[in-house]
Amino acid sequence: MMDIKVLKPILGANDQRAQENRSLLEKNRIVAVNFTASPGAGKTSLLLATIKALRDEFRIGVVEGDVSSAIDAETVAKEGIPVVQINTGGACHLDATMISNALESLPTEDLDVLLIENVGNLICPASFALGEHRNVLVASVPEGHDKPHKYPVMFSKSDAVVLNKIDLKPYIDFDQDKFTAAVQGLREKALIFPVSCKTGEGIDHWASWLRDQIRVEQSN
Amino acid sequence: MMDIKVLKPILGANDQRAQENRSLLEKNRIVAVNFTASPGAGKTSLLLATIKALRDEFRIGVVEGDVSSAIDAETVAKEGIPVVQINTGGACHLDATMISNALESLPTEDLDVLLIENVGNLICPASFALGEHRNVLVASVPEGHDKPHKYPVMFSKSDAVVLNKIDLKPYIDFDQDKFTAAVQGLREKALIFPVSCKTGEGIDHWASWLRDQIRVEQSN
Repeated sequence: MMDIKVLKPILGANDQRAQENRSLLEKNRIVAVNFTASPGAGKTSLLLATIKALRDEFRIGVVEGDVSSAIDAETVAKEGIPVVQINTGGACHLDATMISNALESLPTEDLDVLLIENVGNLICPASFALGEHRNVLVASVPEGHDKPHKYPVMFSKSDAVVLNKIDLKPYIDFDQDKFTAAVQGLREKALIFPVSCKTGEGIDHWASWLRDQIRVEQSN
Repeated sequence: MMDIKVLKPILGANDQRAQENRSLLEKNRIVAVNFTASPGAGKTSLLLATIKALRDEFRIGVVEGDVSSAIDAETVAKEGIPVVQINTGGACHLDATMISNALESLPTEDLDVLLIENVGNLICPASFALGEHRNVLVASVPEGHDKPHKYPVMFSKSDAVVLNKIDLKPYIDFDQDKFTAAVQGLREKALIFPVSCKTGEGIDHWASWLRDQIRVEQSN
């Protein structure tokens, strides 16, 4: 009887491509961080603050993901940072193939860190690995403290949560203790960094954590 | 030669179900309004303000859509309004079948208006008709004035845009003229209702428009 070979993919197509991205990143000693958030939480503002805090120590590149427009990439390009804008068309998330294409357009040999701004969405990006080393969720005070209950998967997959727009706390009913309890109920050791990208409050503490994470990955 | 019948679906499965929902709604003389938004823009607060403004004139029912939790349905139920919570699991939008199921659990013979709160997401809900008569997008000042450029499909499919949290304008760099121009660039006659669900500002104007829309549909 003929021996029929049955091939079973060990990984789905996206996961396989994500693993290839990861290998390429590591070959070039690049640490990649994936930023997710609701629309308008302040991902781009946080990226700009992060670039300002870390650009003297690391060579930083950026991938901007949006359904439409190049507004964010233009903002980042003004800082003199290598940046690629991905327009997903209708898709509600970046995927590993998009990142693979973006890497071809970036000077990978001259980068230490890749900051990836995912599409503004608290649901879909959770299902698509990109090859990233860390996941950071950017929440914001005006969204309310109940969001971890409503979007548990994204929160549970994030290594750190940056809580932006804390300068608006005096004007909004936001219970930070409830927010912290909800986040840590989903991921016990989740770190939460309250910041204001507008005033700069908390950015040092956040950047210090990210610096440590980059150093850890670089030494692996 | 045998005559072979080739059946081509005129509508996709979701559109077909949406049309069935629409027929059921109209048989019961119910006007359905679909509310979409980013997470945390204030859909539930707007629903509560709308219920308060219109409950003396219309018998209102509510469908709450969330990936997870029943927080919003519990909030609405406290108002003594018939409400069904749909948990989509992982799905980033409501679909027509979910609404069809929800209608079975609602007292359709005793309703004039159905307010549907879609999942917090500015991308996916645009592709899934529910059988609704009007689409309303809830934006909010803290999200920034560039959102119509980034999420054009959702804005272009909305009959009205409610701009919530205008009480925060003194503390945020939000250019309302730019926002209005961006919205109307996508849908020329789009109506924009600036409101604060917190202070009540603008709610009368919004509720007055919605009242007119309901009357128009009822008289059809």
